[in-house]
Amino acid sequence: VPAAPVRFFFDFLSPYAYIAWTQIHPLAERYGRDVDAVPILFDALLGAHGTKGPAEIPAKRLYVFKDVVRTAHVLGLPLTPPPAHPFNPLLALRVASSDLDRSARRRLIDAFYRATWGGGPGVHEPAVVARIADEAGLDGTALVAGARQEEIKARLKAQTDEALALGAFGIPSIVVDGELFWGYDSFGHVERRLAGRDPLGDVDLSQWKDLPASARRRV
Amino acid sequence: VPAAPVRFFFDFLSPYAYIAWTQIHPLAERYGRDVDAVPILFDALLGAHGTKGPAEIPAKRLYVFKDVVRTAHVLGLPLTPPPAHPFNPLLALRVASSDLDRSARRRLIDAFYRATWGGGPGVHEPAVVARIADEAGLDGTALVAGARQEEIKARLKAQTDEALALGAFGIPSIVVDGELFWGYDSFGHVERRLAGRDPLGDVDLSQWKDLPASARRRV
Repeated sequence: VPAAPVRFFFDFLSPYAYIAWTQIHPLAERYGRDVDAVPILFDALLGAHGTKGPAEIPAKRLYVFKDVVRTAHVLGLPLTPPPAHPFNPLLALRVASSDLDRSARRRLIDAFYRATWGGGPGVHEPAVVARIADEAGLDGTALVAGARQEEIKARLKAQTDEALALGAFGIPSIVVDGELFWGYDSFGHVERRLAGRDPLGDVDLSQWKDLPASARRRV
Repeated sequence: VPAAPVRFFFDFLSPYAYIAWTQIHPLAERYGRDVDAVPILFDALLGAHGTKGPAEIPAKRLYVFKDVVRTAHVLGLPLTPPPAHPFNPLLALRVASSDLDRSARRRLIDAFYRATWGGGPGVHEPAVVARIADEAGLDGTALVAGARQEEIKARLKAQTDEALALGAFGIPSIVVDGELFWGYDSFGHVERRLAGRDPLGDVDLSQWKDLPASARRRV
């Protein structure tokens, strides 16, 4: 039985997800794993947890931009902001949730990431989304039309709900055999998990889970 | 002229700050820098930015605990949760803001971190805080009494306001020559900055700062 794919939950809005997307494939391949890319709506995650995204906190927004520029430089990765941010990622997420085989979905996501964080024209215009899919060797017009069907809309929502059920609170979330990791910064831990060396197996977490609070913030 | 100290803004509430505290000294020393430890109130940062802390989002709280257990294991660092979390860190933060020389403040913070994340009794009881300071070779009774004076209360508030003015939105925040970094995950970038190899010097950030939004979340 081949090992289960590594699951990669993402939204095009997040430059960290772009960086992680470029790194998850070589990492998974080193451990004989495929990558299942699962588009989800970051907005819905924030809404479910009642919290703010980095782009909604001005000091954090600027810091995140600097941080991703630094990390992309270290990785030798092209990184240019999209024409606008935040932008509406919904159509691109739905198109990327279409019925596609794994390699076609990967090509399409690569192309959407080039369009958003790799210096391209963004993904907020349906005609541009269709053209990008065409250039990735797919039928962009059919994919954009299909993405407007209820089935695909419901699929994106179901994917987001599944991420929430797995414990996701941020983007990207990486799931290895049911265990969730958050962000490119967690890739060291992801790799130890893939290698069978996750120290968490040896730790009794019950004392952490049941920790009582002795103070609460006034909100 | 000796290089300016690395500034380390922290709250005892954050296990990431504990991990970073144990690592910032050897890092700074490699580049001939001292560390100025600056206690601040995480709650006030959250309040100023209108956002939630990790402990206030159940899925993130559990993930953060797992993540710090993993990272502490990689670093070979003892990590045990305090008796309760969140706890009220105010008295310990004020005591750690007393007039002390750099090495006494470091000993005291080491001791408070052992008390919170190193298996100790926590810092929510004034008598325990005084005893911990005694054991660190200081006059705990005098420090706890001093921490109740308006001057020290105002100092902790001023330190928090300074962190906010420097762009802080999270704990720990590390400031190198005016440039702010967030979290232990940023230490690679902190080190490149200290080594004069921060790629950000070569990047035009104006396109990032002035990026227009084309969508906003409904909140």
